[in-house]
Amino acid sequence: MLVKHCVISALTRSTSHSPSSTVLRRQQFLVRTLCASRTHLPKLIKAMSSTSEADAESVLRTVTPTLDPKRHKGQAGKIAVIGGCREYTGAPYFAAISALRIGTDLSHVFCTKDAAPVIKSYSPELIVHPVLEESYTISQFSEEEKRKVQDNVIGEVDKWMERFDCLVIGPGLGRDPFLLECVSKIMLLAKKFNVPFVVDGDALFLVTNSIDLVKSYPLAVLTPNVNEYKRLVQKVLNCEVDEEKAEDQLRSLAKQIGGVTILRKGKTDLISNGEIVKSVSIYGSPRRCGGQGDILSGSVAVFLSWAQQLKSGPESPSESPAILGCIAASGLLRKAASLAFTKHKRSTLTSDIIECLGESLEDICPVS
Amino acid sequence: MLVKHCVISALTRSTSHSPSSTVLRRQQFLVRTLCASRTHLPKLIKAMSSTSEADAESVLRTVTPTLDPKRHKGQAGKIAVIGGCREYTGAPYFAAISALRIGTDLSHVFCTKDAAPVIKSYSPELIVHPVLEESYTISQFSEEEKRKVQDNVIGEVDKWMERFDCLVIGPGLGRDPFLLECVSKIMLLAKKFNVPFVVDGDALFLVTNSIDLVKSYPLAVLTPNVNEYKRLVQKVLNCEVDEEKAEDQLRSLAKQIGGVTILRKGKTDLISNGEIVKSVSIYGSPRRCGGQGDILSGSVAVFLSWAQQLKSGPESPSESPAILGCIAASGLLRKAASLAFTKHKRSTLTSDIIECLGESLEDICPVS
Repeated sequence: MLVKHCVISALTRSTSHSPSSTVLRRQQFLVRTLCASRTHLPKLIKAMSSTSEADAESVLRTVTPTLDPKRHKGQAGKIAVIGGCREYTGAPYFAAISALRIGTDLSHVFCTKDAAPVIKSYSPELIVHPVLEESYTISQFSEEEKRKVQDNVIGEVDKWMERFDCLVIGPGLGRDPFLLECVSKIMLLAKKFNVPFVVDGDALFLVTNSIDLVKSYPLAVLTPNVNEYKRLVQKVLNCEVDEEKAEDQLRSLAKQIGGVTILRKGKTDLISNGEIVKSVSIYGSPRRCGGQGDILSGSVAVFLSWAQQLKSGPESPSESPAILGCIAASGLLRKAASLAFTKHKRSTLTSDIIECLGESLEDICPVS
Repeated sequence: MLVKHCVISALTRSTSHSPSSTVLRRQQFLVRTLCASRTHLPKLIKAMSSTSEADAESVLRTVTPTLDPKRHKGQAGKIAVIGGCREYTGAPYFAAISALRIGTDLSHVFCTKDAAPVIKSYSPELIVHPVLEESYTISQFSEEEKRKVQDNVIGEVDKWMERFDCLVIGPGLGRDPFLLECVSKIMLLAKKFNVPFVVDGDALFLVTNSIDLVKSYPLAVLTPNVNEYKRLVQKVLNCEVDEEKAEDQLRSLAKQIGGVTILRKGKTDLISNGEIVKSVSIYGSPRRCGGQGDILSGSVAVFLSWAQQLKSGPESPSESPAILGCIAASGLLRKAASLAFTKHKRSTLTSDIIECLGESLEDICPVS
């Protein structure tokens, strides 16, 4: 009762006080502290205190294209995931199948030879290319032979590159040095063809140690979780994460990397390209099963590529495709996670959330 | 209003005039010009003006056999898909499982050794033969050894060939030269045994470059999409696709290839064997996820083989089994795609459409 009273009181006063007033800020702090565990309150607090919350549903409606019977296969998007090794196969599958369930036409995966049969067997809908190599398969090779293998890997990706509307680089990639070296070259290739890419998982590890790979490429999106963000901040800004100045710090980080877009995942997702900062805090689900980040990276790729199409149209939005893609993906994932949780409760798995992507998008943005 | 008036007027008159009358034809031309962009009108116009729109539902009822408890396994059809390589495994699965879902008794896949375990893992219902070879597995072989491998491949297919009612050649075949050479020999084998075959995907690439493989074989059906059709027209007719004369050009193309049947896929499917031209334009779905062409090729194989059975019966239809197979398959796929889309909207995948094949066929042609 006390908690409820505090919130109501704070909300009432917020209408008659400027958001910066000391009284209001103290009340907000009190409410936040008291209500931290109350799942239905963050929205209220957010609506009251923040100016940066994005209208994710409106963005979803803006970027999602009308389905037109005259369009042919591929026009609603062609996505490729670079990831999947002997150890990890679920992550690239989650990213690639999420893209299809949202509505992209074709979803490819470029993974190692060992990972391919497994990823293929998850779904006949994906086109899986067994082209990447890990160190253990070439350990007996001379330096020249290794270079040849690397050239072959890049050649295999090269012949597909310009067909793709967006890449997702990193899900289930692992940290094999030879593989990561190939992935560096794939990033250069994507930049050469102006293909946007989302960097997640182990590719964030790669990028954190070689920031030039993405620096000043406006079509790069990084989607770090808490730990990945911490490492990025330490490496690029040379300091620790400061939650009190979360938005400013994110803006500085994105600016320092030359205006790439960063989606900092958390209870509230924060998105910045070094200029603006947007937040998405729609309530999702308390279930933290692994793989939700892969849904997000696959979703960003789809919405970014759809937003890119808008750019050339008559009603080009003012925000960048990367920002719009992040907002839309964050909003949809949260809605789908919430829906899956109402159905499956503690038992909710990542696959259940993926099954809810279509229904959630349809709810926000019906096909007719 | 003017458009509507014209249509109604033309429709009314069409009942009292012969279809060839000059007045009616002029009206039809006017209506077609005025209504070109009206998506709800083509059916009316079609019904009124064209002699070429097929009654797909009626064809489906004609060719689908009555289920008779006295019949034994195999009598409702034995289909084989030739396709599936290291890179592509989804396409042959979609074609083969579609054939089973429509009602064929046995569905085989002949694919490479690498593809077989994956395709097997999609479904225990399929019989998957790991008999094809790609160049990379025999790269160290001498010419003589390669010839031996090829002989073995053909031998493995040969021992099954005469049991099949129809083949689907091409889904997920890839473009490996050694593999395509083997597939050329499999086509010769099918012709020797008078087994009908549907040519799709990468086998169309093969056939376009070696048109003699299918020339004058009346049991061959080609199912090109926009790009595959373009290449066929360029190669065979030595000109570009002319949308204004779409039906005539298709007829010429089929005639030029010696009366094979061609199903030109598009917003409206056009079907010709060099003599007649039929169209199927039932509304399907605006979703263009990859794999729908594989459902179609598997379906053509089933309906063609069922139509072949009718030929020897007392009520042999006047159209060829290949034409009937194409009309039935096109109609059923469109109905199933439409049903899947009402259920899954943007989220619709090829597997969802396959799940709707049975319900769609039952709706048109109930078992009792």
